[in-house]
Amino acid sequence: MGDGTRTLRILIEYDGTDFAGWQRQPGQRTVQGCVEEAIAQITGKPVKVRGASRTDAGVHAAGQVASFDVEPRIPEWGLLRALNGLLPRDVAVLDVRQVPPDFDARRYARGKVYAYEIWNHLVRSPQRERTTWHVRAPLDLPAMRLAAAVLVGEHDFRGFRASDCERISTVRLIRRLEIHRMGPLVRIEIEATAFLKNMVRILVGTLAYVGRGRLNLAAVERVLETGDRTLAGVTAPPQGLTLVRVIY
Amino acid sequence: MGDGTRTLRILIEYDGTDFAGWQRQPGQRTVQGCVEEAIAQITGKPVKVRGASRTDAGVHAAGQVASFDVEPRIPEWGLLRALNGLLPRDVAVLDVRQVPPDFDARRYARGKVYAYEIWNHLVRSPQRERTTWHVRAPLDLPAMRLAAAVLVGEHDFRGFRASDCERISTVRLIRRLEIHRMGPLVRIEIEATAFLKNMVRILVGTLAYVGRGRLNLAAVERVLETGDRTLAGVTAPPQGLTLVRVIY
Repeated sequence: MGDGTRTLRILIEYDGTDFAGWQRQPGQRTVQGCVEEAIAQITGKPVKVRGASRTDAGVHAAGQVASFDVEPRIPEWGLLRALNGLLPRDVAVLDVRQVPPDFDARRYARGKVYAYEIWNHLVRSPQRERTTWHVRAPLDLPAMRLAAAVLVGEHDFRGFRASDCERISTVRLIRRLEIHRMGPLVRIEIEATAFLKNMVRILVGTLAYVGRGRLNLAAVERVLETGDRTLAGVTAPPQGLTLVRVIY
Repeated sequence: MGDGTRTLRILIEYDGTDFAGWQRQPGQRTVQGCVEEAIAQITGKPVKVRGASRTDAGVHAAGQVASFDVEPRIPEWGLLRALNGLLPRDVAVLDVRQVPPDFDARRYARGKVYAYEIWNHLVRSPQRERTTWHVRAPLDLPAMRLAAAVLVGEHDFRGFRASDCERISTVRLIRRLEIHRMGPLVRIEIEATAFLKNMVRILVGTLAYVGRGRLNLAAVERVLETGDRTLAGVTAPPQGLTLVRVIY
């Protein structure tokens, strides 16, 4: 970093429906790509933006956090307005603030909160099509909460990750896993120190199996004990998932 | 109507974003068109569906009601499932029930409830882009509620209708007009016996002008007295509007 370079931290909201996820990929429309292009248009220089979470294609964010370095010309407020003028309608920057130069949105994150919404009704909901997973069979929430209690705490979650997840350490700490119902809408909120690839979606898919009586408590415990992905539930579809908050 | 013909009433939900409104128009994708085609595919006969409200392009519905006649072969439950299998993802039928043969969704409606949502924040919200009107300037809700109190009741609303509205009688009764704030989200709920063309959107645009200090109470009273559309506020954009319920 040159003299006078500033590190900025931005808070980002997006509707993930039309994005191939957060992470920049050649030939794909990604959130990181859009944000980097908008910043580069303002500063006139290419920039590398580091995001706290690599959300999958179709996953939304109410509070993604990213950090990057810029020259100290532009005030935060001006950058916020300019970015939102340039960014497409399905992504916006909610806040810009200066942080210490060693700040890194991913490494500094002490926790993340995700929410997953299920539309639990016989008929699908067109107005919630982009933001929920439609599950027809009635879900038994008390049973799901018992299974959630088994999952909370520090465990080896290797049974709850995508087959191409490359992390070596698979122990994570789930601090909170709450399940609420508001009419046909079932909302699952999960807070953890960090997550493995697809972990939230496999946890939700497993809880949904418990809610439909296809898995019992002992089966969930067995996934934790054996680390066998094939014993867990499906990977819940991406559109129900939202990155709510990153904790620093 | 032939012998044994049944009249059915259906409850319809849609995301209006990609529709050219409710009413069938040649060469346009409309909700009425989609529903009529789906019913015709099931029954094998062309059908005319009568909707309670002709929602504009981009306007949503949580509870549109429509009626039509069918031969008595198909049970309600089977029709519900078959329709939702055929309809596109942005429209669904929530309920099907038999009604007396003279029932007409439009003529029998005794009232309608619409909701309008404004995202009242400096920064636009990508996740609410399709369902809210973004208003940057802070809205003064107490002032808006005073103006709402002037509008409630039976009045001649000819100053609050589209210039191409062809209704002869322009007297309508607003039973309820409530304005709530949940953080940056301002929700306006209006119940009336019936509405003129664009009436809700012009009422909301006028209330927003009051909330920004561009119109005062006396100005709103003057629109009612003179019937002069040019004295009212803008027509609020369609995506913030949802037909919530039709009252019978």
